[in-house]
Amino acid sequence: MHALLDELRIELPSWAFGNSGTRFKVFGTPGTPRTVWEKIADAATVHRVTGLAPTVALHIPWDRVDDYAALAAHAREHGVALGTINSNTFQDDAYKFGSLTHVDATVRQKAIDHHLDCIEVMHQTGSRDLKIWLADGTNYPGQGDIRGRQDRLAASLATIYRHLGEDQRMVLEYKFFEPAMYMTDVPDWGTAYAQVSALGERAVVCLDTGHHAPGTNIEFIVAQLLRLGKLGSFDFNSRFYADDDLIVGAADPFQLFRIMFEVVRGGGLDARSGVALMLDQCHNVEAKIPGQIRSVLNVLEMTARALLVDVDGLVAAQEAGDVLGANGIVMDAFYTDVRPALAQWRTERGLPADPMRAFAESGYQQAIDAERVGGTQSSWGA
Amino acid sequence: MHALLDELRIELPSWAFGNSGTRFKVFGTPGTPRTVWEKIADAATVHRVTGLAPTVALHIPWDRVDDYAALAAHAREHGVALGTINSNTFQDDAYKFGSLTHVDATVRQKAIDHHLDCIEVMHQTGSRDLKIWLADGTNYPGQGDIRGRQDRLAASLATIYRHLGEDQRMVLEYKFFEPAMYMTDVPDWGTAYAQVSALGERAVVCLDTGHHAPGTNIEFIVAQLLRLGKLGSFDFNSRFYADDDLIVGAADPFQLFRIMFEVVRGGGLDARSGVALMLDQCHNVEAKIPGQIRSVLNVLEMTARALLVDVDGLVAAQEAGDVLGANGIVMDAFYTDVRPALAQWRTERGLPADPMRAFAESGYQQAIDAERVGGTQSSWGA
Amino acid sequence: MHALLDELRIELPSWAFGNSGTRFKVFGTPGTPRTVWEKIADAATVHRVTGLAPTVALHIPWDRVDDYAALAAHAREHGVALGTINSNTFQDDAYKFGSLTHVDATVRQKAIDHHLDCIEVMHQTGSRDLKIWLADGTNYPGQGDIRGRQDRLAASLATIYRHLGEDQRMVLEYKFFEPAMYMTDVPDWGTAYAQVSALGERAVVCLDTGHHAPGTNIEFIVAQLLRLGKLGSFDFNSRFYADDDLIVGAADPFQLFRIMFEVVRGGGLDARSGVALMLDQCHNVEAKIPGQIRSVLNVLEMTARALLVDVDGLVAAQEAGDVLGANGIVMDAFYTDVRPALAQWRTERGLPADPMRAFAESGYQQAIDAERVGGTQSSWGA
Amino acid sequence: MHALLDELRIELPSWAFGNSGTRFKVFGTPGTPRTVWEKIADAATVHRVTGLAPTVALHIPWDRVDDYAALAAHAREHGVALGTINSNTFQDDAYKFGSLTHVDATVRQKAIDHHLDCIEVMHQTGSRDLKIWLADGTNYPGQGDIRGRQDRLAASLATIYRHLGEDQRMVLEYKFFEPAMYMTDVPDWGTAYAQVSALGERAVVCLDTGHHAPGTNIEFIVAQLLRLGKLGSFDFNSRFYADDDLIVGAADPFQLFRIMFEVVRGGGLDARSGVALMLDQCHNVEAKIPGQIRSVLNVLEMTARALLVDVDGLVAAQEAGDVLGANGIVMDAFYTDVRPALAQWRTERGLPADPMRAFAESGYQQAIDAERVGGTQSSWGA
Repeated sequence: MHALLDELRIELPSWAFGNSGTRFKVFGTPGTPRTVWEKIADAATVHRVTGLAPTVALHIPWDRVDDYAALAAHAREHGVALGTINSNTFQDDAYKFGSLTHVDATVRQKAIDHHLDCIEVMHQTGSRDLKIWLADGTNYPGQGDIRGRQDRLAASLATIYRHLGEDQRMVLEYKFFEPAMYMTDVPDWGTAYAQVSALGERAVVCLDTGHHAPGTNIEFIVAQLLRLGKLGSFDFNSRFYADDDLIVGAADPFQLFRIMFEVVRGGGLDARSGVALMLDQCHNVEAKIPGQIRSVLNVLEMTARALLVDVDGLVAAQEAGDVLGANGIVMDAFYTDVRPALAQWRTERGLPADPMRAFAESGYQQAIDAERVGGTQSSWGA
Repeated sequence: MHALLDELRIELPSWAFGNSGTRFKVFGTPGTPRTVWEKIADAATVHRVTGLAPTVALHIPWDRVDDYAALAAHAREHGVALGTINSNTFQDDAYKFGSLTHVDATVRQKAIDHHLDCIEVMHQTGSRDLKIWLADGTNYPGQGDIRGRQDRLAASLATIYRHLGEDQRMVLEYKFFEPAMYMTDVPDWGTAYAQVSALGERAVVCLDTGHHAPGTNIEFIVAQLLRLGKLGSFDFNSRFYADDDLIVGAADPFQLFRIMFEVVRGGGLDARSGVALMLDQCHNVEAKIPGQIRSVLNVLEMTARALLVDVDGLVAAQEAGDVLGANGIVMDAFYTDVRPALAQWRTERGLPADPMRAFAESGYQQAIDAERVGGTQSSWGA
Repeated sequence: MHALLDELRIELPSWAFGNSGTRFKVFGTPGTPRTVWEKIADAATVHRVTGLAPTVALHIPWDRVDDYAALAAHAREHGVALGTINSNTFQDDAYKFGSLTHVDATVRQKAIDHHLDCIEVMHQTGSRDLKIWLADGTNYPGQGDIRGRQDRLAASLATIYRHLGEDQRMVLEYKFFEPAMYMTDVPDWGTAYAQVSALGERAVVCLDTGHHAPGTNIEFIVAQLLRLGKLGSFDFNSRFYADDDLIVGAADPFQLFRIMFEVVRGGGLDARSGVALMLDQCHNVEAKIPGQIRSVLNVLEMTARALLVDVDGLVAAQEAGDVLGANGIVMDAFYTDVRPALAQWRTERGLPADPMRAFAESGYQQAIDAERVGGTQSSWGA
Repeated sequence: MHALLDELRIELPSWAFGNSGTRFKVFGTPGTPRTVWEKIADAATVHRVTGLAPTVALHIPWDRVDDYAALAAHAREHGVALGTINSNTFQDDAYKFGSLTHVDATVRQKAIDHHLDCIEVMHQTGSRDLKIWLADGTNYPGQGDIRGRQDRLAASLATIYRHLGEDQRMVLEYKFFEPAMYMTDVPDWGTAYAQVSALGERAVVCLDTGHHAPGTNIEFIVAQLLRLGKLGSFDFNSRFYADDDLIVGAADPFQLFRIMFEVVRGGGLDARSGVALMLDQCHNVEAKIPGQIRSVLNVLEMTARALLVDVDGLVAAQEAGDVLGANGIVMDAFYTDVRPALAQWRTERGLPADPMRAFAESGYQQAIDAERVGGTQSSWGA
């Protein structure tokens, strides 16, 4: 396999191990973590069988603890590290009409302060990235002043940015819609790009693969943000309709392949690019830990396929105007079954050839099903 | 105003008065009902100021009571009646992988039994319609057998249909997606039509205006279902993106006008057509009772505009191939400000000229804000 | 490989070998056929290297000739046969405001007569299927009466249907939009199904994979139409946005796989099912003959993958509620590289192991480039 | 009416008076111009009855003449002036695989030279704006290198930009898709913004209202581009599905109202803003001159409604979190029938109260129907 595969690192979101659902129902399942400590144990299990997921992203306040140094030590003991800190300004009653964009300076300050708290957590956990996804927006025309909200967003972000440490970054995530149903304050990559460009070099964009309008060519945005030096991170998941948050690669594996090909093309696999590959998914009906393992493997497998593309041949075909030839080279890589070679690659690294089976046979799920009785299962609410 | 306006009746959903939200957050508000009795009181208030909303739809089990006769009497005392009974097979853990379509006969029977319970409620409330919206579907390719699920759905519906009283109808609602993210078992009007056609005359289709793929011409479906004799009811709301459940007419008033024009064209305003006009919305961030008043008024106003269309002139222009002339006749009606005439029409009927203001000045909201303290506010969960 | 692969037959559209383009530009290319005789020669070349494309669909009047018996003989000499007859009521000035739906009985009769002419052609060519795709629709609200147009469509189709021979079928194709921009008269499978159901057993539906709203689950429709006994044929192509008419499988190979899986599941590969697999594509920028070869191979390869699904294991996983297990079985089949086995399968049948290469090395393209000089290249216009 | 209405100017596209259509058919109509001279006469007629359309945009080479000074004089004699120059790099065989982005420097230079020719035309016509819409893109993954094409685009644009006169601007238009079906080189406002920002102050963005993904909140982009100082012009039209190019306001008049409200809000009606309002439509089935008159009136009427919004009340409601109140203020303006007041406003300015009727009664159409016989009707091809 290509040497760059050894550089692949995929960050797991702590919240993927808790319950999630739709507005209609959140189903519970045996073994679901009650605490961030248990979430990290689950995440470490994913890393143990894949060797690809060495860090865990936290969501504040869902993952708030008294002692982050202890949490970091806990993670280390399990073989992983703490990663990106995600802020949350969408579950407090104060944010009903916005957070960093709110018309009321008091609410804006509350939201800003939350981010400063997150930065403080980052200092304690050693995290590099503060990821900001805002639920801010409006449901009805006239409800808010689009322009004024954008200006207030810029001012709020600037305040937060000034508080970042020198080695820390702000990563601004955009989303087409939901929970806002008419106007979202950061709805597209253009807005995120314009906002972070006004801040400075350490402000970059997070591309969530489920946060686009129907039909959007996502790999184009990947290429463009890499070109502009502003691709900070991915939130990987997949979708058939809206922000479905399904397992990455499950809905359209060829799209994931094309995305990873542009990541490779633009140098995004190089650690110096600063591009962080993260998962952000909701395992509403499927098992959570195997869901994360499957997701990590999907990213790996599509990256491996992307690295198989005969780039010289591709360039030659492109220059010759050979449409079918160029497309054929790309499809050849996509259709190649890389799974046997990756099993071998894992074996050479002391990892299980089949991580899904290794987890299933480990007894881990049975153990947590038995142990994690009582308490409140973690979910988006806590 | 057109005489047909006097026939207009809009059914309110009890659940519109409780809290709703997105998977991210459900905001509470003062005055929110704790019980179905309070919901009905709120609904009656909408009818009092509009004169257009004489019935209230119930959702079972959200609105389950011990004594439905008492509930009907309570409604009558408030000047309204109980209407459609909506079943709910999406909030029980048993339905994680389906209800009427479930691979397990035990779960299907449980879901069927729930509908038989609903029919029993209908006998007690005097309701005509059993409305079935199913959350059934799958999130991943392979998770379910599309064909098998459809066959089981047909069998389950047939069983329920056989238990309907002679004056009762089954109304099957379709939805494009959500909560299922890959495959929904009743995703489009074609499926609903095929299913109800296999059952018999008293099985009809419910068209929820928010349940279509992007770009769908909804008025076409209205015209088609009326033509086929299978339009049972509307669930009115509006959307910019997905099933946003916004106030009907708020996102695209011209679309609502076109829909009402096809209702008029197809005879759907005639009581004998059996077409029930209902609201189905979520007032996530706006006030709920005024939200319902506004919705009722929007349907009224667009119906009044639709009734203004110069049909003879329109037919003449269509036959002449006069595209701009025909379109102009339709737009003329749409652009006519019917609000002054409707205020007069209301005054003549002893109703407030301005229902929104009448409610605001009634003191009702202040009263329920003060009274409804303690208890658990109603929402989709209860 | 699975025995059912030997049953696979893919019909080629004569027009794929002519020029096509967008409203912005139609690019010409060397070697493009000037006549239907040359188109058939090209189609036969595709069959020669793939062994999978034994029939060619004609478009009337594009492929009108004086002597269809001679054309059929010409096809036989080239090793293929004539297939489906496609009518065309969208390029005559008379049809500006509709054909079978037109408000003017004279125009409707003209369009009906065209279809009777097509049936006459079918008698001469021995074709089974009359495929009807209508451009009928309107661009502006009010331009036409939705209901009236639908009624006229029903009457026109009934007249045509009555003229079909006993072994002939009518196949009605639906399309979401284009060229009509507001309302299309047969916009969805529900409408096509309702119309053909009113006609009789020999009226069935054509599913063009590019003719749906964004996000539509096409394999669901495949399963549903097979269940209802009304899936007549496919028009295969692929799309990223609208009716892009790209090479089938090029935009979303996993979707094509899922479609073929439902075809297999519903018995559609069985010749007795009557399901015809056809291509309908536009090679705007790529080479046409290799474009058709690639398309045929894509259908073959995805069918082969679909036949690899471990159905017993899948059913067991579905019944156990094992979401990841069931999905994994499907993905296993999709990710398997069937190309080496198919090369072997071809070799065993005396076909080239690599049809793309076989064509490239055959000198056929160079020969037609040299020979086909002068005349008017075929395109949609002629 | 609001004083700002007197500032309203809407530029007409010369090509709207020629024939247009879809890839399926271009219908001809009596009276269609054969030359740009006739197109300008038609455009002047629109201005004569509306008083709102004093300039005509040209498309090069469609409107190429030997003597642009004479053409400008011709326009002046008809009471209008020449406006924006639109380049065309999509109808020459050389551009099959791109123009400013082409992999071949020779083709890029040809496309650059075409733009330099356009600048030369601008010097002769006195036009301020060079509008660039590119058909560049690819149909298949792998066909082109996304990143490389973007880099070449930047270089080509920079060359053109350097040749602009000091009072001239470059206006870069983006489009979601079509004619490219997989990847478009300037697909969204973010790309256009990033490209023009790299050029300098006189490079701005053109927003075509039909060039977005389904569901896109266009007024948000309007507000954002105005905020960033980069909104150069509009191409107005409307759509139900894709780039339908219907009459502006015909598909969703409320959207046009919201767009005009943001134009007003952001100062875009002020001549000093530099925002040019243009039409860009295709009258495929409707009469062309009345189609343009209707379009101009639609923009006027929605602007008048937008100017009616009670801004003080709106701000107060927004600050109070009064969602329904704020929305109600906006809807009040939208639902107000401004047509009688605008008729009066026109009469006061010596214009026909009813421009559509004035044109119909003018005999102009009958005159051109009679005069314009023979020759080749203008269309996109010439």
